[in-house]
Amino acid sequence: MDLGNLGIQPNSDPNGSKDHVSHMALDIGGCKHHGDPTNDKCIIKATGGGAHKYGDLFKEKLGICLDKEDEMDCLVAGANFLLKAVHEEAFTYINGQKEFLQIDHDDLYPYLLVNIGSGVSMIKVDGDSKFERVSGTNVGGGTFWGLGRLLTKCKTFDELLELSHQGNNRVIDMLVGDIYGGMDYAKIGLSSMTIASSFGKAISDNKELEDYKPEDISRSLLRMISNNIGQISYLNALRFGLKRIFFGGFFIRGHAYTMDTISVAVNFWSKGEAKALFLRHEGFLGALGAFVSYEKHGFDDLMVRQLVHQSPVSAQDGGYKIHGSQNGELKDNESIECSVYVS
Amino acid sequence: MDLGNLGIQPNSDPNGSKDHVSHMALDIGGCKHHGDPTNDKCIIKATGGGAHKYGDLFKEKLGICLDKEDEMDCLVAGANFLLKAVHEEAFTYINGQKEFLQIDHDDLYPYLLVNIGSGVSMIKVDGDSKFERVSGTNVGGGTFWGLGRLLTKCKTFDELLELSHQGNNRVIDMLVGDIYGGMDYAKIGLSSMTIASSFGKAISDNKELEDYKPEDISRSLLRMISNNIGQISYLNALRFGLKRIFFGGFFIRGHAYTMDTISVAVNFWSKGEAKALFLRHEGFLGALGAFVSYEKHGFDDLMVRQLVHQSPVSAQDGGYKIHGSQNGELKDNESIECSVYVS
Repeated sequence: MDLGNLGIQPNSDPNGSKDHVSHMALDIGGCKHHGDPTNDKCIIKATGGGAHKYGDLFKEKLGICLDKEDEMDCLVAGANFLLKAVHEEAFTYINGQKEFLQIDHDDLYPYLLVNIGSGVSMIKVDGDSKFERVSGTNVGGGTFWGLGRLLTKCKTFDELLELSHQGNNRVIDMLVGDIYGGMDYAKIGLSSMTIASSFGKAISDNKELEDYKPEDISRSLLRMISNNIGQISYLNALRFGLKRIFFGGFFIRGHAYTMDTISVAVNFWSKGEAKALFLRHEGFLGALGAFVSYEKHGFDDLMVRQLVHQSPVSAQDGGYKIHGSQNGELKDNESIECSVYVS
Repeated sequence: MDLGNLGIQPNSDPNGSKDHVSHMALDIGGCKHHGDPTNDKCIIKATGGGAHKYGDLFKEKLGICLDKEDEMDCLVAGANFLLKAVHEEAFTYINGQKEFLQIDHDDLYPYLLVNIGSGVSMIKVDGDSKFERVSGTNVGGGTFWGLGRLLTKCKTFDELLELSHQGNNRVIDMLVGDIYGGMDYAKIGLSSMTIASSFGKAISDNKELEDYKPEDISRSLLRMISNNIGQISYLNALRFGLKRIFFGGFFIRGHAYTMDTISVAVNFWSKGEAKALFLRHEGFLGALGAFVSYEKHGFDDLMVRQLVHQSPVSAQDGGYKIHGSQNGELKDNESIECSVYVS
């Protein structure tokens, strides 16, 4: 049985379905038959909590065995793989401008990997399979979407994100200027436009929830959470002397305002010393890591064929060939299609 | 005119009034006549944004001039004053047990002062009037009360806090066990009960806002914000090698669960290396700092008389006498009454 073009599934994190599989729930990384290809038993590499939580369901409903891989192992393996194999994988996002980073493979480590799913993991990566989860925060994508669902009438995560584009957080956030009668608090370097307290205006406005526009709530929520993640990430990078912070996970979804806020936060808290870096295939780290783990486990009967849309320029890494555009014209978040054959 | 017993007002932060004066709005620190006591012009020391914002209003409506003092200066002066002058000012709060700390005045500095108002300021204090605001977060008391107001039907900050007592955040927070099918993620030291994503369950539950109990929402919100403040505080203490973190500001309000969560957060993130310390007069730092600034400005015609309820044992510091209980029997948050006379 050929399950080719199974593809790499993103972290099945904040999406619109109410019944969706939660963060770290299930990252599918490839499929193979167990031994004899005529055997109906199909095994899929999977990582994240869902591999544990939904293992029985997959077996019962689909006859598929989930071969569980450790989530942090997979996130790191996926990130390392992408950063080495894909020519224009990492970029900065400043003032709406994306700038790709050329990474010297010999100068990649150590770095901080911040994976933003429902929660957030912060991992210090020192090499291939050499890492430590040093921190994290429970204020992540699930908080944005969970609070957003309760506060607005949005039905999907994407709808909530889209709304934030049109919103104005100043309607609901308490700014330094709101406290200081329109003035800066210059002595400590806070401009009047700095957010002093997210949602702080709601404590004094004579308004109820329905009096606020959902788009303003969404924007305030997104700023609050992105800013917080940027700050904690920077503090951890500083703690371990890490000069690069890569942000991944399906929370970002290539969303300009999310990246912009994280960039601004890292810049603000580091006083310009550090820059946030984003990954083009941000939502696929775990799945990709699970996928490449076939090699680790000696599945040398596996052959991977990648199909890409444009400029098939190959970059060799770890036994795999990835074809990617060198001119950065690939769409953001474009998936790397992988067909899996079992010999 | 004698405005004695004006008292020391707390940071007029998260309170129940919809028209309340916002964080840092107005900390009143004492009153004096300008020159001739028969002169009607009354001057009040004030700090925080409100001293700027409401200066004209005070003058117009009450004929009172606000003599503005810098907020950070006042917070630090107030904290230093209390830590030196009040015998049992600082305490740890662990598993519901309060333990007072004996502070050697020669070993007080440096420390991190975390003032939680609507927003949060984190100040590295190196000595009398020697400090730097090194960090902060916009996720503070205003966020708790602002989001809380929008999500529940609570009319006051205290009502919201009180509700949290009866709530169960597990109804709405996504725990590691929810993701991992009831199991721990032992490899990275996360128990199944650890919060993976605050409000994360709301993304998959088939519930609307009104289906959740306000007490569960309140508890989840309080845990999210307290935990976040504890984490960022610890990271900053670590950054500057500060062994003590004092938490002040009117957000805490002696609330057991708030202190407990902050303590747990500092303990969790520091792996038991650091402890959160709380101040008995947590909400009065700015006001007290403004008050003691009379001395700084050479108002030597000022006489301060303190009235206390119990055990009038004096502790000498900086020219002031503070009477306080040595047996810790004073109620938490009891204000230090101060009468101000102008000679």
